[in-house]
Amino acid sequence: MSERLTVHDNNGRNIYDIVIEKDFSRLKDELLKLNIKEKRVCVVTETTVDSIYGDGILNIVRETSKEAYKFVFQAGEGSKNLYTVKDLYTFLIANHFDRKDILIALGGGVVGDLTGYGAATYLRGIDFIQVPTTLLAQSDSSVGGKTGVDFDGYKNMVGAFYQPKLVYMSTDTLKTLTDKEYLSGMGEVVKHGLIRDREFYNWLKENASDIMNKKDECLQYMAKTNCYIKRAVVENDFKEQGERAVLNFGHTLGHSIEKFLYEIHLHGECVAIGMNGAAYISYKKGYISKEDYEDILNTLKLFKLPVNENRIDVDNVLKATFSDKKMEGEKIKFIVLKEIGNAIIDKGVSVLDMKDALYKILGEE
Amino acid sequence: MSERLTVHDNNGRNIYDIVIEKDFSRLKDELLKLNIKEKRVCVVTETTVDSIYGDGILNIVRETSKEAYKFVFQAGEGSKNLYTVKDLYTFLIANHFDRKDILIALGGGVVGDLTGYGAATYLRGIDFIQVPTTLLAQSDSSVGGKTGVDFDGYKNMVGAFYQPKLVYMSTDTLKTLTDKEYLSGMGEVVKHGLIRDREFYNWLKENASDIMNKKDECLQYMAKTNCYIKRAVVENDFKEQGERAVLNFGHTLGHSIEKFLYEIHLHGECVAIGMNGAAYISYKKGYISKEDYEDILNTLKLFKLPVNENRIDVDNVLKATFSDKKMEGEKIKFIVLKEIGNAIIDKGVSVLDMKDALYKILGEE
Repeated sequence: MSERLTVHDNNGRNIYDIVIEKDFSRLKDELLKLNIKEKRVCVVTETTVDSIYGDGILNIVRETSKEAYKFVFQAGEGSKNLYTVKDLYTFLIANHFDRKDILIALGGGVVGDLTGYGAATYLRGIDFIQVPTTLLAQSDSSVGGKTGVDFDGYKNMVGAFYQPKLVYMSTDTLKTLTDKEYLSGMGEVVKHGLIRDREFYNWLKENASDIMNKKDECLQYMAKTNCYIKRAVVENDFKEQGERAVLNFGHTLGHSIEKFLYEIHLHGECVAIGMNGAAYISYKKGYISKEDYEDILNTLKLFKLPVNENRIDVDNVLKATFSDKKMEGEKIKFIVLKEIGNAIIDKGVSVLDMKDALYKILGEE
Repeated sequence: MSERLTVHDNNGRNIYDIVIEKDFSRLKDELLKLNIKEKRVCVVTETTVDSIYGDGILNIVRETSKEAYKFVFQAGEGSKNLYTVKDLYTFLIANHFDRKDILIALGGGVVGDLTGYGAATYLRGIDFIQVPTTLLAQSDSSVGGKTGVDFDGYKNMVGAFYQPKLVYMSTDTLKTLTDKEYLSGMGEVVKHGLIRDREFYNWLKENASDIMNKKDECLQYMAKTNCYIKRAVVENDFKEQGERAVLNFGHTLGHSIEKFLYEIHLHGECVAIGMNGAAYISYKKGYISKEDYEDILNTLKLFKLPVNENRIDVDNVLKATFSDKKMEGEKIKFIVLKEIGNAIIDKGVSVLDMKDALYKILGEE
């Protein structure tokens, strides 16, 4: 049970490998391949992940590098800001990190995004490695090179497109997640099926119970398929100038809802709620059938994901949507499903369409 | 009197043009070529430049864009930090700047570096244009895509490689510079001759008096030749992994000296002092003759640039040098002159060599 995918740039050149393993037994070999023997390496992680994996990973790094360091920040989205990045810069300077040295992001989406951004901007860019430990990070954020932090209440407002040198995922780490965290990640997984791969979407429905029980074969297959889908989309569009936008299915409204309810819902849960809205618009605009729309809701519920939320204020969510970065001029690039397994960009989605979708999310007919 | 150079990427594709004009009369046409009619444009500048050119440029931008804004920060290297960048983010958010909008850096090196970094990181990257108004920025920092800010006393510690969409320079702006500012820029100009173009170096010596008097033909020729040299070096090495390092001639010691004496000397002056040290090492290591070394000192003095400085502490400067980002592992990538017009990287320059050079800078034999 071991998978390796290579991500290529626009010219077909190899940029980095994604390695999918059950555990961390092959991390040492993979690190050695990157010639880090003469380098300083800093493992960047947060308090929760550190308590489980911090020392183990640090020991592996010690055996493969010149000097091994660990930078730990407080767990939670609240740390994903420029203050934490500045603390990281200060730590790297104090330990004499230079352009040839390297960072390892060990953790979920917050760790990966923040570490990637630190790597992208420290000394105008140093190398980094992603070691994602959550389903969200393994299925989505660790692949594709989007890095960034929140700013002034806006999610990922400051960032860079910056590719890692390696992504190494151990599916065993998913077993240490809380149910809420794990299932939140299923939001992005279902999204991948919906936007690109009907067969995978059906597989998810059929194997829901094994997925919920975190069966090894399921975790491995899911990780692999997620990475294939994500790779296919980003390889065609590294800087999100076109096709890549389909990955934002469910995110336009989801992000805005998250802005208000981040204390209640995790990112993947907000995306699930947002997918209800986006699927509803897809149905209302005549792309998908009522049956498909309902099937999508049922599938999300199968993974105990929320699809309704009555604690939102429709007008405030709409306002937030229009100040989000998915804007292009005055038009929102809204992602709809042309059919299950095929998402497209629709620039003709109106404020009224979104308002209707938000009322649907509220649970009103 | 008008010049246009196109900068290409590694694959020979056009990235952006450098336009060299006497005045700003062609800026409007150049902006229109970039299709900014439907975009928000923010002119980013500092107080001194704003008082001379701010409104004029803003008027040109108003005629060519959807909405024109101006963000002005306090002049001086002291503003080149993440606090100013955060103020810029806040300003852009407040004015609803999205991914399709664009920044114009109007000013010297501080404005260009900071604006470029803001553009590189706002929403993971938006377009920007360089309108350099100092000799330092026109001859050096506006070309090549190095952006960044200082952090915690370290110069350009945080940054990104990020290319502009256009560089537009008016040589008339050099006439509004103070002598100290203008001549400081000559430090980088002489450097260009020394590292790549002996003919240009000789031209500088022969035309020193016309250059000092800012004769139009001289300014134009100088701008053009600077850009040709800089382009030739950066096109081969966008991310400074090899050859581009030769542009750091005089900078290894110069940067460290600047760290202590930034209140006395401008950047180009520190580079001149650093070039004394680097040229001395080139002579001592047998690359160039004593006559060449002395000729270099005399040329720098021709432009009233400092070459000696007795207010430095040799040990502190050395310490700062070893925590600078030109480090590679434990080795300094020191740039020496193999001959006048040809700089190379020498990894064999020892601490003792540098110490000798610093004593030479102190004025001791």
